[in-house]
Amino acid sequence: MEVDIAIIGSGPAGLTAGIYALRKNLKIRVLEKRMAGGNTADSVLVENYPGFKAIKGIELAQKMQEHFEALGGIPEEGIEVREAKKEGNEFALKLSDGNALKARAIIIATGTTHKKLRAENAEKLEGKGIHYCATCDGPLYRDRVVAVIGGGNSGVTNALFLADICKKVFLLEYNDRLRADPVYFEELKQKGVEVITSAEVFALEGEEKVTGLKYRERKTGQEKELELDAVFVYVGLKPNSEIASQLGCKTSEHGYITTDSWMRTSVEGVFAAGDITGNFAQTVVACGQGAVASESAYQYLNNPRAAKS
Amino acid sequence: MEVDIAIIGSGPAGLTAGIYALRKNLKIRVLEKRMAGGNTADSVLVENYPGFKAIKGIELAQKMQEHFEALGGIPEEGIEVREAKKEGNEFALKLSDGNALKARAIIIATGTTHKKLRAENAEKLEGKGIHYCATCDGPLYRDRVVAVIGGGNSGVTNALFLADICKKVFLLEYNDRLRADPVYFEELKQKGVEVITSAEVFALEGEEKVTGLKYRERKTGQEKELELDAVFVYVGLKPNSEIASQLGCKTSEHGYITTDSWMRTSVEGVFAAGDITGNFAQTVVACGQGAVASESAYQYLNNPRAAKS
Repeated sequence: MEVDIAIIGSGPAGLTAGIYALRKNLKIRVLEKRMAGGNTADSVLVENYPGFKAIKGIELAQKMQEHFEALGGIPEEGIEVREAKKEGNEFALKLSDGNALKARAIIIATGTTHKKLRAENAEKLEGKGIHYCATCDGPLYRDRVVAVIGGGNSGVTNALFLADICKKVFLLEYNDRLRADPVYFEELKQKGVEVITSAEVFALEGEEKVTGLKYRERKTGQEKELELDAVFVYVGLKPNSEIASQLGCKTSEHGYITTDSWMRTSVEGVFAAGDITGNFAQTVVACGQGAVASESAYQYLNNPRAAKS
Repeated sequence: MEVDIAIIGSGPAGLTAGIYALRKNLKIRVLEKRMAGGNTADSVLVENYPGFKAIKGIELAQKMQEHFEALGGIPEEGIEVREAKKEGNEFALKLSDGNALKARAIIIATGTTHKKLRAENAEKLEGKGIHYCATCDGPLYRDRVVAVIGGGNSGVTNALFLADICKKVFLLEYNDRLRADPVYFEELKQKGVEVITSAEVFALEGEEKVTGLKYRERKTGQEKELELDAVFVYVGLKPNSEIASQLGCKTSEHGYITTDSWMRTSVEGVFAAGDITGNFAQTVVACGQGAVASESAYQYLNNPRAAKS
């Protein structure tokens, strides 16, 4: 089987690339290891996608998916691209369902994954009270005590969401102030979230499941302990860059794909969009890049030589 | 009066930059020469802004404006920035209402304007049957005959819109095929739009108002004539680059502002977003760039030195 473009990943970047490609009658497949919607689907509430004052992440992702499907697109969930290599002017992919796929161009929109917490017992307790998505798992902790680790926008919005459900929410941030948009600070107070800054979480406690955490007050060096039922971890993201390395795309030292402003990677015929590019990790930015990547791929398919310059 | 960021232009790029800046509690002004919404507001129907399968351009622009206003933003319409210059680490602006404004950073989101038709009598008949916005002016030609000049996406979508209103719609394209997305071709047929490719429009006819046009068949050299009541012109865009030149920002030979992937221009403290950057001229691309420009300006304001690298 052969397609014009294989789009790898179906978050906002991949879906937008798909929307633009289908409107040009290109033959595409959109392959998704997990579920459509990317990190946006895990967002509690998106308040900065222009046009929607406030919308649940899962709803926004669903709208994008429906938009793509209305044009005849199918996000193929649960299909991982295991291997990708360039053969002449084509790309040969091996998929997790055992099939092979040839594509004339590739758009990498594989996004990022939440970094795991580096702390004592964290590995042992993975899946036992350590969570990365409050929308998904928050409701398990109704009237219980939880901590959110990480005070960027993700951590703060998830803490606010959890504050509506849980008896008590702690928010721990390594730096001496929260990194989130100030627009949230008042709400944190109102909802009684207990913010602890300059806090280095160095251990989790519990045997069968999380029962507490230990942190070091970075200013005093003092060690403190919190009793709780779960932790929600937002300590950063790491790029899903396996495909990029297989294809030999140039990346930053942290593994994000380097592109020009037309979303072309260092490998001819390979384009990238969304969080995997290491730009500002926002839904609308991913969508904008997806549109550009799709247009660039289209130009390339029509005229590989001219599109290069 | 002094602000953190002066955002010049309130199309999708400027409004998105505003949304992001207000969420960071920055003090901003958004200055708009004409009306909020930019070229998106003039679009008949937007079918590729992810999340909305199909929405009138004016409605989408309105939703973005409301989003911005819900955060306390005010797009100041009818205020032109007449002069902008850098003074030390600040920018001094002179506005068309006679006031001065100082800003610590600037985001240029001035967009593009439709190019005028270069043809005999075009200058004389400007404003007398020559139009650039079918949504705005199409209804004037109910049951009349019109021509759309230019077969890109703008021309084609406007032709489709006019076909619902007018008795007859011609669509003339200079190249030997339409440049619009193929998704529209079937609809053009269904709606009876008469497509004429390889056509060089070289003259308009009429004294007090447009009564016809003349074109040359580029393949045969033959001259032909059409009788009609109006022309709608979509022959390209030109950047509104006055502010960029005043500030000394590096531009392409066509006047589009050069930026890096973080929307920084060559002048420290000046950022650009939207169609003025010469990238893929799409609403969602402009929004994505607006978000990035706003984040970059914020980083710059917090730490001018670090943000530079």
